[in-house]
Amino acid sequence: MTYGTVFAGWRDASPAWPAYTRHAFVQDLGDGTLPRAAFLHYLKQDYVFLVHFARAWALAVTKSETVAEMRLTAATVHGLINEEIALHIKTCAEAGIDEAALFATQERQENLAYTRYVLDAGHSGDLLDLLAALAPCVMGYGEIGTYLAQTKTSDTYAGWIDTYAGDAYQQVCANVGALIDGAVARRIGDAPQASPRWATLCARFDTATRLEVGFWDMGLAP
Amino acid sequence: MTYGTVFAGWRDASPAWPAYTRHAFVQDLGDGTLPRAAFLHYLKQDYVFLVHFARAWALAVTKSETVAEMRLTAATVHGLINEEIALHIKTCAEAGIDEAALFATQERQENLAYTRYVLDAGHSGDLLDLLAALAPCVMGYGEIGTYLAQTKTSDTYAGWIDTYAGDAYQQVCANVGALIDGAVARRIGDAPQASPRWATLCARFDTATRLEVGFWDMGLAP
Amino acid sequence: MTYGTVFAGWRDASPAWPAYTRHAFVQDLGDGTLPRAAFLHYLKQDYVFLVHFARAWALAVTKSETVAEMRLTAATVHGLINEEIALHIKTCAEAGIDEAALFATQERQENLAYTRYVLDAGHSGDLLDLLAALAPCVMGYGEIGTYLAQTKTSDTYAGWIDTYAGDAYQQVCANVGALIDGAVARRIGDAPQASPRWATLCARFDTATRLEVGFWDMGLAP
Amino acid sequence: MTYGTVFAGWRDASPAWPAYTRHAFVQDLGDGTLPRAAFLHYLKQDYVFLVHFARAWALAVTKSETVAEMRLTAATVHGLINEEIALHIKTCAEAGIDEAALFATQERQENLAYTRYVLDAGHSGDLLDLLAALAPCVMGYGEIGTYLAQTKTSDTYAGWIDTYAGDAYQQVCANVGALIDGAVARRIGDAPQASPRWATLCARFDTATRLEVGFWDMGLAP
Repeated sequence: MTYGTVFAGWRDASPAWPAYTRHAFVQDLGDGTLPRAAFLHYLKQDYVFLVHFARAWALAVTKSETVAEMRLTAATVHGLINEEIALHIKTCAEAGIDEAALFATQERQENLAYTRYVLDAGHSGDLLDLLAALAPCVMGYGEIGTYLAQTKTSDTYAGWIDTYAGDAYQQVCANVGALIDGAVARRIGDAPQASPRWATLCARFDTATRLEVGFWDMGLAP
Repeated sequence: MTYGTVFAGWRDASPAWPAYTRHAFVQDLGDGTLPRAAFLHYLKQDYVFLVHFARAWALAVTKSETVAEMRLTAATVHGLINEEIALHIKTCAEAGIDEAALFATQERQENLAYTRYVLDAGHSGDLLDLLAALAPCVMGYGEIGTYLAQTKTSDTYAGWIDTYAGDAYQQVCANVGALIDGAVARRIGDAPQASPRWATLCARFDTATRLEVGFWDMGLAP
Repeated sequence: MTYGTVFAGWRDASPAWPAYTRHAFVQDLGDGTLPRAAFLHYLKQDYVFLVHFARAWALAVTKSETVAEMRLTAATVHGLINEEIALHIKTCAEAGIDEAALFATQERQENLAYTRYVLDAGHSGDLLDLLAALAPCVMGYGEIGTYLAQTKTSDTYAGWIDTYAGDAYQQVCANVGALIDGAVARRIGDAPQASPRWATLCARFDTATRLEVGFWDMGLAP
Repeated sequence: MTYGTVFAGWRDASPAWPAYTRHAFVQDLGDGTLPRAAFLHYLKQDYVFLVHFARAWALAVTKSETVAEMRLTAATVHGLINEEIALHIKTCAEAGIDEAALFATQERQENLAYTRYVLDAGHSGDLLDLLAALAPCVMGYGEIGTYLAQTKTSDTYAGWIDTYAGDAYQQVCANVGALIDGAVARRIGDAPQASPRWATLCARFDTATRLEVGFWDMGLAP
């Protein structure tokens, strides 16, 4: 499944992309060597992450120019709050961590840096600046899920892997890819790489990707 | 059904509330004398209104402090984009106006003034400032629907009246009322009328209500 | 003095521009027939306008991408708050209206519509969307001042006319024109009219210009 | 010179305050043991910091409710862009680093985390949320400057120390303290510690203070 033309261009231009999608944390999920405590620490931080990530997608609704853009950004907010967060709540509940404890998790600097950067990308720019900062998380998890489904040597984290490799999440990536392609065409035209904005958007994407690397680093250092 | 304690306080403090909820446009809906052309003109403007009103509710997601606040504000965005706007599209389609025409409606000043005021209330203040500016539309339509269901002498606009008098919409008003009560208690405490913010919030509510009066005026002057 | 290339393009594409810059309110300033009460009513509303207009220029600081953009937008905030507002305070004080009374002026719908539209243009888009909505006021007053200085048949409103026709204000227009040209080149490139954003920006400029017409209409109807 | 009542309350409630104001980086400035390379690294990051910090103060202008609040927040933007940034440019120029190089500095995660958190505090809340996140930097540097002026055993960094210990900067702290006291009184009243918002504002202040600690940590690890 393709995630769209613009995303492919941003990814290929991002020096930090391999360090993010082939990070040691990712490898340790695939071979099952990630300690359970590190995984739960990651899930708790990721719960707080998703709260702020949903806020950033809600900001995208406010910056949409068409009803089609609004429908897709609002559907993503809905999915994040009602489905993806729910998954974290369920997994953590099984480990004895209730939602009040999740919400009270002290947000680590690496976590905070990422979501607040995304929100500021949206506030300081237009919808494209925001989408360029949102894309690495959405599509990166799609790529990582697919990669781990093909290469994993352990089923310890199969639940996590199946979530992101599965059809539902892959469809989210395809939808967001189409949203990005349409939003770029609407605002920059058919040859976005010829626009001065291309470099700015690539820089936003790469900065967000570097912050993803920091998030994985944090995941390995509870 | 009650719309909550805080809303009741804001409404009672708003000089403009009766002019809005008992406006000639409202009365003409109840006795069926509103010309069809005026109703369609209103529906087209209201479609554009709902687009920006949904943006304002999405802004409320970004300004929420708890997951419960996020769930309710996000559900409202979802309802506006997927249900309330859909109703306008359907009614207008029956009158031969397609969605592209709806979206291309030139926004009247009275319409624009209202939604941009609400958005700015949110950007310049916190969630309470935004909710005080959102409440007159949500709850006012609930009150108007109930009033017209009890007093109407014509079924010409029964579809519109039933929508806002109906259980589903009344439940939305009750939910938003509970959201407001909770958000106020969380930020100002149990005696909000003793806080200096009370007067500011009442002023926001009344300004938004005056802008609703302007919207009805516009509805009568296609 | 030129106000820049981009502004000239936006103005030439704006159907509402002549209705704004040659409005009856403008003509009445030039021939001195504007009633004093209407002028003071306008000044009081314009004081409230400038408060929110300064907020919109401050938003432009937050959306700047270079230190040069920040310096010019911040200088405009400074000028509005410390000089242009000061002029209104002085003129109104001479007419017995103190600043507390000015600040307490109830904002008219036509006034509110304009500034909140500008603020929302900034929040929903990037710096260019904001500048396209700010430009009609800044440059329109520059054009009107120059036009009235050349055509006026009365000195009744010479103080007002001299302010906007004078070198200091004309320099502000030239600086803002250069800011716009630079910001557009940086984000869209050397042929902005070939970009899909050109139509969007022209529409923003024309909407803001129509709201200026509404502001003059209000000025004639205290 | 006092920095106001509210600031004193926030500082006393902040567990992270001593770790920030008595950090090893601070001590090394006072005894002159901070390596020059670390100081220049810090100055370059601080230049980028000030760009975004000025954006956050500009956001405060947009969230002001009185002309007095606007004047003080706008004056701070002006001072940051035209004076404090100018000092960094001058010091770095003496070390052979020009402004283009400064602006091109790759922003470190610890730096980015702080300013984007402050901006989001403003966007998600009201002026008080923003001021609580801005205060640790403004007043912390005032306290640190005064402390080092009294305790320093070396003149190596006397220029930096004198800037923050000096009358001009101490006056900025006093002005910002008065702004905060007034803004709190206006929105929460005379007994802010009795309001549910007090805990939220203390948490904002402490989070920003923790991010200051991270900034110093980064300063020691070029």
